[in-house]
Amino acid sequence: MTREIVSALPELAEVQVGLLHVFIQHTSASLTINENADPDVRTDFEMVANHLVPESLPYVHTLEGSDDMPAHVKGALMGFSLSIPISSGELALGTWQGIYLCEHRNHGGRRQLVLTIQGE
Amino acid sequence: MTREIVSALPELAEVQVGLLHVFIQHTSASLTINENADPDVRTDFEMVANHLVPESLPYVHTLEGSDDMPAHVKGALMGFSLSIPISSGELALGTWQGIYLCEHRNHGGRRQLVLTIQGE
Amino acid sequence: MTREIVSALPELAEVQVGLLHVFIQHTSASLTINENADPDVRTDFEMVANHLVPESLPYVHTLEGSDDMPAHVKGALMGFSLSIPISSGELALGTWQGIYLCEHRNHGGRRQLVLTIQGE
Repeated sequence: MTREIVSALPELAEVQVGLLHVFIQHTSASLTINENADPDVRTDFEMVANHLVPESLPYVHTLEGSDDMPAHVKGALMGFSLSIPISSGELALGTWQGIYLCEHRNHGGRRQLVLTIQGE
Repeated sequence: MTREIVSALPELAEVQVGLLHVFIQHTSASLTINENADPDVRTDFEMVANHLVPESLPYVHTLEGSDDMPAHVKGALMGFSLSIPISSGELALGTWQGIYLCEHRNHGGRRQLVLTIQGE
Repeated sequence: MTREIVSALPELAEVQVGLLHVFIQHTSASLTINENADPDVRTDFEMVANHLVPESLPYVHTLEGSDDMPAHVKGALMGFSLSIPISSGELALGTWQGIYLCEHRNHGGRRQLVLTIQGE
């Protein structure tokens, strides 16, 4: 979702040196950076996430469904915020880096982000 | 530990837009954000952490006990710092989000945090 | 690599309170903090990373080699940036904390970092 974030931030163009902070206000969806070229990478992320934190573990917190507690743990493993350098009005991402929003619920709703720019 | 952090920071009330950085100066305890409503979530986190990084793996660094090296890895997976947006004098956490200090040792001691506020 | 980073930043000495942001512009190498005293810790990190994200999983994205997709996931688990407090001209790291660059490819190339200092 790099493109969505950048296009929501015309202020980015005025920052010579700084940081963009992206924060997701949820506990079952998360943020990460990864290879943005091949869509297969997303398929593999999903597969490994389910391998790492399977729904079959003996969870106690199951009231909201069998995908809920695994979603909390996957979220904590990926993280709920990103900080990305800004250089000469642009995100200083590497060639292959893109921002991912990771939805860990089977039927996630609308997700809310808070974006903060610091710099000069 | 959201409440402990907020009550240690009266300066927060003066910040209209900014970021709070929370840093833990240890390698076997970590910080994350997660669901702060149901205490069962903590039980499940502990269970999954032990599933992911069991003490039974063939560790080399075992001098400080069988729970030490797993604690380092669990810490790295969760992370040692958090950045949380500040908006109108308050942390802009989502409804269900709370700050967790994750103790990964069986008998952890006193833990030291460094809190940094940036903003205006 | 704490020493390399600090020696690349003479500006650090002038900062009384602030943050150092370290960002790696790649998706198969990552950054973390961990115990910097015993080199065995690195051996164990490598072992656990391979345990968590083995090359034997049924990956789809395999064009760049069997170690490529595991490297992307390991990178996302560790994270691609660090924020470390600065206090009185020095990094406010804990006694045992050091900055790790984690190379997740079998034959990784040159890696590029972006360092940003904020503070006063």
